[in-house]
Formats: sequence, structure tokens, C-alpha cells
Amino acid sequence: MMVMNMPNWLKQRAFLTPDRSALVFNEQKWTFSQLFDETRRTADRLYSAGIKKGDYCGILAANRPETVFTIYALQQIGATAVMLNSRLTTDEIAWQLHDAKAVYLLYDQEHTEKAQLISRVRSFCITGIEGVAPAETRQTFSLDETCSIMYTSGTTGRPKGVIQTYGNHYMSATASALNLGLHSDDTWLCAVPLFHISGYSILMKSVLYGMEVHLMGKFEPERVNQLLKSGNVTMMSVVTAMLSAMLHELEGDYSSRLRCMLLGGGPAPVPILEACKAKGIPVFQTYGMTETASQIVTLTPEDSLRKLGSAGKPLFPCAVKIDRADEGEILVSGPNVTPGYLNRPEANKQAFQHGWFRTGDIGRLDEDGFLYVLDRRSDLIISGGENIYPAEIESVLTGHPAILEAGVTGVPNDQWGSVPAAFYVNKEPISEEELIDFCREKLARYKVPAYFVKVDTLPKNAANKLLRRELAKQWSGQDED
Amino acid sequence: MMVMNMPNWLKQRAFLTPDRSALVFNEQKWTFSQLFDETRRTADRLYSAGIKKGDYCGILAANRPETVFTIYALQQIGATAVMLNSRLTTDEIAWQLHDAKAVYLLYDQEHTEKAQLISRVRSFCITGIEGVAPAETRQTFSLDETCSIMYTSGTTGRPKGVIQTYGNHYMSATASALNLGLHSDDTWLCAVPLFHISGYSILMKSVLYGMEVHLMGKFEPERVNQLLKSGNVTMMSVVTAMLSAMLHELEGDYSSRLRCMLLGGGPAPVPILEACKAKGIPVFQTYGMTETASQIVTLTPEDSLRKLGSAGKPLFPCAVKIDRADEGEILVSGPNVTPGYLNRPEANKQAFQHGWFRTGDIGRLDEDGFLYVLDRRSDLIISGGENIYPAEIESVLTGHPAILEAGVTGVPNDQWGSVPAAFYVNKEPISEEELIDFCREKLARYKVPAYFVKVDTLPKNAANKLLRRELAKQWSGQDED
Repeated sequence: MMVMNMPNWLKQRAFLTPDRSALVFNEQKWTFSQLFDETRRTADRLYSAGIKKGDYCGILAANRPETVFTIYALQQIGATAVMLNSRLTTDEIAWQLHDAKAVYLLYDQEHTEKAQLISRVRSFCITGIEGVAPAETRQTFSLDETCSIMYTSGTTGRPKGVIQTYGNHYMSATASALNLGLHSDDTWLCAVPLFHISGYSILMKSVLYGMEVHLMGKFEPERVNQLLKSGNVTMMSVVTAMLSAMLHELEGDYSSRLRCMLLGGGPAPVPILEACKAKGIPVFQTYGMTETASQIVTLTPEDSLRKLGSAGKPLFPCAVKIDRADEGEILVSGPNVTPGYLNRPEANKQAFQHGWFRTGDIGRLDEDGFLYVLDRRSDLIISGGENIYPAEIESVLTGHPAILEAGVTGVPNDQWGSVPAAFYVNKEPISEEELIDFCREKLARYKVPAYFVKVDTLPKNAANKLLRRELAKQWSGQDED
Repeated sequence: MMVMNMPNWLKQRAFLTPDRSALVFNEQKWTFSQLFDETRRTADRLYSAGIKKGDYCGILAANRPETVFTIYALQQIGATAVMLNSRLTTDEIAWQLHDAKAVYLLYDQEHTEKAQLISRVRSFCITGIEGVAPAETRQTFSLDETCSIMYTSGTTGRPKGVIQTYGNHYMSATASALNLGLHSDDTWLCAVPLFHISGYSILMKSVLYGMEVHLMGKFEPERVNQLLKSGNVTMMSVVTAMLSAMLHELEGDYSSRLRCMLLGGGPAPVPILEACKAKGIPVFQTYGMTETASQIVTLTPEDSLRKLGSAGKPLFPCAVKIDRADEGEILVSGPNVTPGYLNRPEANKQAFQHGWFRTGDIGRLDEDGFLYVLDRRSDLIISGGENIYPAEIESVLTGHPAILEAGVTGVPNDQWGSVPAAFYVNKEPISEEELIDFCREKLARYKVPAYFVKVDTLPKNAANKLLRRELAKQWSGQDED
């Protein structure tokens, strides 16, 4: 049996390379030694507040240094971080905390109001806890242990908590290094949310690689462009909407030190890829999900125009297959793949088969083994990098007494790539304003449909299953009118 | 539980980057696609010869492309390679094969004579097997599976087979990448034997990284210097004797593309480190052993003169401790550490305790956590990169009817760093020539003592244990006379 213990990650990193730069935020900087000190102080406070090994703790916070300290501090204590999307409503957050059996909610000042509306957990502001009881420093992390939980939805509407072990994060970071290389002067710009795997995984890479992270509170294309021109950043994670906004603002070229623009969240439009090529921006398109702890399939810049629309080939320790000869569901395997959903034996039985994880996404492999993702799972809508599940919105809409049934699909949008549009059949008259108000109460802002379309019937197949792709067709027909 | 399966390594590499250069030997070159083809042809031949999954097969061969194909081919079949030091005598080889329960011996033309003297195994020349039965291509490797066996000696005289799993090799290669970085244009010069972990691990890195290996049949300092000047090599593994010979021949500087000179086999003498500094050669001193599948502690060039004599700090997923407060036995742990010795439950019980492997070496840690190796296990003699165990030579000597008892120690040697010197008490008269002849029959050439010293008694402690360090002192005293 392989040894599954490793030295406590941040402690080891602070021991190995104490003076290397770890974190930059605006004008502030921390070396790994300083980062470990801040993290220990935070761990001591959390420990004084009662958090102990094995506890599940929600984190509801923006991209800021205290959030980074809190994430690492929970690892120091051996508690599991339940990373909460800060755009969720209080109802949604309360549901996820309840589902994860979380006993604590850690929030920053920006989210005080939202956090205080949530009951049944002990809430603490991460900048406000005072404490003296020093937490014991753990000597080792076990690769089998659960490090983080992130919620993701599926066809059934209710989100599921994805278990991410230390082993998943370790194998993801090392597999990414085998794919993208690892230079001693690398700095990764994190302008994606830390509550997403895209952001969280950058923090894990930082510790494992001994790499500087440049953290941004908010994505601001002008500031990002300045940074990329300055040569202080070599790697960056983006989604199409971010890259598009950056290109829109960009005058001149980025520094030649920028060696990887890691582009997730669906295939990129050709004009963007061509603009990047013209500007010498090394775009690595990637396919990954919460369940794979970040990248699992990646396309190199050399192949990006030759294999247009492809997500690339799997990372070295990973494999991809399609469950039918031609086009079908995408199955993946690898040591970065989650061991399962939290407390969901039935969903796990369906999702994991013979060592493969069924992504629910539809795709095909070309003759060279390049993956093409044709449709995200359950008609997933990706809007500005956020995953939106039609079923979740439909279940809210049909909860309104005036609505008989509803179908939601993604429709093209210049700014966000895609936004949700709702088609509904009503029982009694209802205005669009009423529907919007109703949705805003129950759903995070980005999930509230941008359009409401009243119809007489919804398109269905013989088994009476809603055909969401037909809705999309109806929309584009309507659009042309 | 973490997924322990990965795609078949060489197959995956040939799929991911078929056209990248994999291997260079003299004027010949192979891409990963070509390397995989050659390997499959070799696997087909070995399979036709009867080798099947689970078999243990000795490999007795020089550094040449066919040896590389054979090493990879055994992995394709799922057979375990028992890597044999080609300098061993037939008796020593026969003993290791017998101990490993090996049923096949694969040799190259250079070792035909030696191989044919070995009975009780089926022997095949790796360039001469004809076959048509195609071996089935394995889809996955399991990290828990035994990939290779290499013999190492200990205090008891008889060598022990070290189990190296696929997981050990994977975790070693990725940990080394976290330590040394990974550049897309890296090329590793392999002028160390493939039957040592120093050479074998370069092949594993090649496949896992997608990295070119420049293989040399023999270490020739002039040729190595030419190559390092040409800029076609970025990394190289050496022992002190090699580096010293290279510096001796070197005029001018190496190419600035050389980014890592990985120096194993004991602390380097100061003049060599200073010469390297003056020439801008980036020396990474390292401590590792067969049981750790290569590096486990490494010193960066920045620290090499500041922490003179130190082996550095552990690799990221590894830990080092000393079993006493000050100076004592070095214990190591990490996912690259062997699960144990082959068929040696007693030795394993002693060597593995609470997740730590007892190296048998003596060392100390300074206040910054840097390791200093004070004495190699059981007075190990490192001669030109080869490990020599005094107990093994002593047991041969005392097997001679004229010898009452014997003690062996390493004494300084300009060319090899150290060579064995034998001290003996005799029962009846015997000449040095007779002793040399006797040793040559039983021992590989490099283990035959360079000096024989007749004494009246051997230095022993109260428990009657031989004090080999006293022998070394006697020698240096004698030397001064």
C-alpha cells in the first residue's frame, strides 16, 4: 500500500522556502513564512471559537487575504471547508450548509448581512474573531482526507456537495504541472472566485509549487491588462467572458513572460482565439469541473486553431472515454476525480461505474483522441463562468401558484456568453415583474432568467421529457423575427 | 480511497505527445511514438519467449536503446524488472535472481558470456529473440504494483531486493518536478547506469514528463563536456567522481541552458563546489537511495556553499527526522519510499517503524532543518557512485580457510572518492595475491579491496562488535607514517 500521509502542506512549504513570495494583494505581500504565521493566528482564533478537526465549516467570503488565511487555517485544524458561492441567496446557502451538516459559517464583512440571516449555524466574521487558545499544529495530512466541499447541481435540481480530498488536490496540481510545466519564477493571477475550484486550486498549487499568487478582489479588465503587461504574472485562469473583456480593453501586447492563459468554461469562439493568436497570447483551453478538482482535459496553444472547438487531450494520469461509439456521454477517470458526492449514495451509484465518473456531458473523440464537448450536462448554462442548471430554475418557477409548467434554456449573450431564458405555461395571469421578483427571492441574481416567454405548451418527447434544445431553437427562431 | 490506476504510461505518453523527442543515443533518435512502437515489438518478442504478467525477469545489460526498450517492454507486459548490476560476478547475479524468484534473464550481447554461466533461469539475448505472438497492450498501471527490483546490501552481508512500485516512481518523478521545476524543453543526460535507480528514474521521468533523454553507453568526460557545451542538455545526474573528471577536462564554460547538475552519492568536496560556482554550474546536491526511488533530500545551488556539506531539505511530500536529539540514525518517509524488501519480513519489521523508514545512515539536522549525512549506513563505502558494503566483503574473506577474521573500511582515493581496504587476522600464512584472486572469484571487481592489511587483532567494542571507524583511523595513521 502506498503511503497516504504527507507533511502538513503549508507548514512544509514555509519550512522549505520560507522567504519565497506566496501572496500578493494590492500593495500587500506575504512570504510563505508570513503566510504560515497569519494562517496559524487565524487557526488559533477559529480553534478558540470552537472549530475542531472533522468539523464542516461554510466559508462565505470575497477574494481577500483573510479568505486565503481562513482556507489554509481550516486545513491546519483538519476541518473541512464548504466553499459557498457568495452570489447565492440566503435560502440557497442555508440549504447547502444544512446538507453538508456544517456547524459553522465563516464570513467576511462584505457578507455580514447575508450571513446573519442564516440560522442553525454558529457564524463568525473572519476578521473579527478574538482568541488565545492555540490550535495544535498538525504534522501530516492524509491524502484520503476530505479537504473541501463545493456544491454543484445536476438534473434533479438540488445541488450536491462534491468531496475534494487532499489527494485530489495533490494529484490535480502535479498533473497540471506535468501538463503546463513548472518554472521557478511562476506567478499565477487569481481573478476567479476562491469559492470555485478554478480559484481554490490556484491556492493549492501555490503551496505545492512554492509559487506566488497574485490575488484580485474583483475581476477588472483594465487592472488585469496592466498586470499582464508589467510582466509580473506568468499564468492566469480565465473564462471566455473575462478574456473577451480583457481583449476589448487591450492596447498593445502582454509581456512575453505570460506563458499560460488557462481558459475554462466551454469552447472559445473563433474570433477570440484568433485575436489571442495575433496578440501572441498562449491560450490553453481546458475542460474540467468541480468533480475533477480543476483541469482534466487541456488543449495546447499549438493545437488551438488546428483542433478548433476541441478541449484537447487528458492530463497524464487521467483518461477520457465516450460511452458510445460515436457521440455520447463523457466519462473520465484519474486520481484528481472526486471519490463522490457528500451523503448521496444513490447519486454516487449512478455517477461512478467501474472506476469511471459519468460527467453527464455529451461529447466525441476525434481520430487523434482530441475531445470535443458538444453539450454540457443537463443542458447546463455557463454564464460568465458560473454554472446554471435549468432544472433548478424550473423547479423554482413551478413553485409559483400561477405557473403550470416551465422550461429553461441558455440563450446567447454578448457579455456573459449565455444567459437563462424561461418559457412557461401559466394557470392564471402573471406579469414578468412578478416572476422576476419571485425568482430573485429564491435564486442567486445570475440565475434569474433574463427573459420570460409565455407559451401554450412546452416541447416534449414521447416520454414526456422536456426538450430544452427545442426551446433554444424556438428562441433563435423568435430572435430572427 | 484514492484511485490507484493510471493509463499505461508509455502508451499514454505516445498518445499525448507522439512527436516529441523521447530518446537520443549517438546519432539515433526516437520520438515517443517510435519508442512505443519499438517497445511493443520488444514486448511481443518477450511475450513469445514466454514472459507473462507477474513474472520477475533479470535484466543484465549496458546503457543502450535495446535496454530501454526492454525495461519499458516488461512494464507493457506487467512483468517486474530485476535490474542487475552488470559488474557483479556470476555468483552474485545467480544469487539475486534466485532470491527474487526470477524465471528469466534478459541480457545484451556484451553480457552473453556472463549470462550463459548462470543456470536455473531461461536466458535470452534482448537483441536476438524472434517472436510473432503479440502481447496484449495493458490499459492501466496500478500504483500499488511492483515495477522494478534493485538489490542493495546491508549489515548482514547478503543483499536485499528493494521493491519499487509504479506509485513510488510516479511520486518520485512528480516530487522531483516540484523541487527542480519542469520546462518543456528539458533534456536529461543519462550517463549513469540504467540498473541503478539514478539511471532508471531518468527513464521514468522521461515518460511522465514527456522529456527527451540523452543516453550514453559509457561515461566519457570529454563527450559529456561537448554535449553540455552544445546546449542540447539541460539536466544531468552525476556522482562526485564523474563531476570531478568532467571539471578536470573542462575548458571554457557549459551552455547556460544547463539548469541542473544533480549530484548524488555523498557530500561533495569544497574545491569541486567552488570550481562549479566559478564555472556557473548549477549543482543540486542530493541524498537518496534505492529505497527512496531516487532523490529524497536536495540542496539548491544557492545554499550549496552557505550550507557546506549539507544534503539539503526534503522534497515536498517527504519528511526526514533523526532518531535522537542531536546526532543519530536518519529516518525518512514519503510516497516515494519503498513498501519494503522482497520476501524479507524480518528486515522489513526492523526497517519500517510507524510510517518511517530507517535508512541506517547517521546524520543531524541543523537549526534551519538542513540535513547533514555524517556516515552512510553500516559504514557504507561509496566508490565512484557504486555502493560497497563492508559486511559483504568481510563475509567473503572469512570464507577463506586461512582467514580468522576480517574488517573492511573505506579509505580515501583520488579517482573514486573511496575504495575498500581489508584488515585481516590469519590462521595460516597467505599472500596478498591469493587473497585478491579469491576475492575476484566471489566479488564484483569494484568490491575487491584495494589494500590488504595483516593485523594481530581487530578493534572491537565491549559487545565485541567490530569498530570499522577505528580501522579507518588506523589507516590514516599508517598513511601518515
